[in-house]
Amino acid sequence: MERRRRLALLAEARLTPLDAKTAVGLLRYRPESVVAVIDSTRAGLTAQACVGTGDAIPVVASLDAAAACGADTLVIGVAPQGGGLPDAWRPVVIDALTRGWDVIAGLHQFLADDPELASLAGARGAQLVDVRRPPGDRLIATRRAASVEALVTLTVGSDCNVGKMTAALELERVLRERGRRTAFVATGQTGILIADRGVPVDAVPSDFVAGLVEREVVAAAAGVEVVLVEGQGALHHPAYSGVTLGLLHGSCPRALVLCHHAGRTTIRGPGGRTTDSDPPIPPLAALVKAYEQAAAWVSPARTIGVALNTLGLDDEAARHAVAAAAADTGLPTCDPVRFGAGPLADALQAMLETRRTHATSS
Amino acid sequence: MERRRRLALLAEARLTPLDAKTAVGLLRYRPESVVAVIDSTRAGLTAQACVGTGDAIPVVASLDAAAACGADTLVIGVAPQGGGLPDAWRPVVIDALTRGWDVIAGLHQFLADDPELASLAGARGAQLVDVRRPPGDRLIATRRAASVEALVTLTVGSDCNVGKMTAALELERVLRERGRRTAFVATGQTGILIADRGVPVDAVPSDFVAGLVEREVVAAAAGVEVVLVEGQGALHHPAYSGVTLGLLHGSCPRALVLCHHAGRTTIRGPGGRTTDSDPPIPPLAALVKAYEQAAAWVSPARTIGVALNTLGLDDEAARHAVAAAAADTGLPTCDPVRFGAGPLADALQAMLETRRTHATSS
Repeated sequence: MERRRRLALLAEARLTPLDAKTAVGLLRYRPESVVAVIDSTRAGLTAQACVGTGDAIPVVASLDAAAACGADTLVIGVAPQGGGLPDAWRPVVIDALTRGWDVIAGLHQFLADDPELASLAGARGAQLVDVRRPPGDRLIATRRAASVEALVTLTVGSDCNVGKMTAALELERVLRERGRRTAFVATGQTGILIADRGVPVDAVPSDFVAGLVEREVVAAAAGVEVVLVEGQGALHHPAYSGVTLGLLHGSCPRALVLCHHAGRTTIRGPGGRTTDSDPPIPPLAALVKAYEQAAAWVSPARTIGVALNTLGLDDEAARHAVAAAAADTGLPTCDPVRFGAGPLADALQAMLETRRTHATSS
Repeated sequence: MERRRRLALLAEARLTPLDAKTAVGLLRYRPESVVAVIDSTRAGLTAQACVGTGDAIPVVASLDAAAACGADTLVIGVAPQGGGLPDAWRPVVIDALTRGWDVIAGLHQFLADDPELASLAGARGAQLVDVRRPPGDRLIATRRAASVEALVTLTVGSDCNVGKMTAALELERVLRERGRRTAFVATGQTGILIADRGVPVDAVPSDFVAGLVEREVVAAAAGVEVVLVEGQGALHHPAYSGVTLGLLHGSCPRALVLCHHAGRTTIRGPGGRTTDSDPPIPPLAALVKAYEQAAAWVSPARTIGVALNTLGLDDEAARHAVAAAAADTGLPTCDPVRFGAGPLADALQAMLETRRTHATSS
């Protein structure tokens, strides 16, 4: 995404921290590109008031209002399970294209393949950008990522939408502040919008998930000390576990960061709805074991810490939740957004040092 | 595939049991549809002499010779890793279309999307059939397959190309001979060609692998006692493990059959080549444990036996290999092709009986 774009993020009636994942990611990591968020049910508020990030970026009711803020590009700000364009949003996309705005989406349903939208975009000189369109390369993974010198680190989780991308980006931020050379590998639509590159693994034909991730990790590893790979899905997720394992085996991480949303006890069904038949989330220690076992089928990995998303808790409850997760797992634990990713960065740096010592002594 | 087709199977220079997977599958399970196999390096031999199945179906050198056998359809008889059309085969496809023959392929590279081939097919009134083209539905799995009454059974393996489809089909054959009502769910190009339906899981966007498999299994389960699901890949395969796990969690089998090629010690690299860096295949007992652990992340499964592919061994060595695998795992073991799938069918029937007893007593 070009840096000079002026983005309006469409999150109509859904501008909450868990619902508007793409909007929240851009507000947190690309705020300089965002001029407005569209949600008529929250118009007049700030982004900060709605989702806890984005400072004074205004929430507005309409494209007209976003235009008044200087917007020239519309971003679909949600990532619905199933990946279709919500029906109610189609007129908004048409309106944006009619204004000559580019429209960026991270949906499974590609806007540029929609004849009406494509024809309108053509007529108005607007671009339809589908960041989830997978590369066409048919690559077969061969554990090449296990041989890179950089410390490849993958965020893994107890469910979807628990903070895997955020944990990776916050960890990268702290490592950079400490002078470490790092690279971030985006694997989902929001991460790709933020990083301007990556591979939308969940849209890739399943045979090539690991191969495309491997290429991305090997390329990112050149000249850096740590590669942070954005995780996807969960090994215990009935729908997405295959995405998770392909990503795990394609990236061959040596370090894992386990991500969890404090208080969540079940894996959420389609659309993020909670039902009685949702599968339970195993204890964190069991998740650590499962991820390490699954990694070792191809290349061994060690969990270096837990990133606990404490959204919805007050500071004291959050501190208790962090302490409990640390006790359950015996691992450094933090909420990287609320309290900073320092403890995870410490653990990674210790691992870097250990490897250096080994390399020197051998 | 319509039953009245008269197939020529293209397997030029590759008509061996492991190389020409699609051709061998059709020769074994749809011989009535096959009139010739094309491999100029083996012309004059029979299919039986080359790959141990297909009886007197002739191996011929050219399309002309296949035409003389009455062929009206060309099938691409290999399933290369990466899934592209071998360059050398393009002229043969063009020749077939020029004759007005339909061409059926199970490649990742869709023939119908190739402008030259599509235009030629159109001009000649020929059809290009890509059985690996995934359905467009964006389905999210929710463990529905765990609730069907039928005993869902999935074949899993130590590597690609060890006999997972064959084990499922042979097991189905024996169960049917015993009067059991069964259904077969094809998940790969060869299985789909044989069964005339199925879902090519390795070509499906990774988010929807489990969801599409789930739909297929639930539909197949209606009115049968046992559903046999064709397995794909391997949990320990660096490239395809994600396909395997999506299939495992989408189909929610209660029973697993572990498939292995006797004597194979490493997972083969791209193109089936063996190199020094190929990952080792763990002991069979470790594989059983890994598959059961991975299944239990979503829905528990029990391994009911081992299908050992003894291709390349003589009968005595094969019997020894079967006995060794049985000793290693403590499970009923057989080579379903060489010795029949009876022991696996026995184990499944015992499981069916146990469930009936439980259902009656509860």
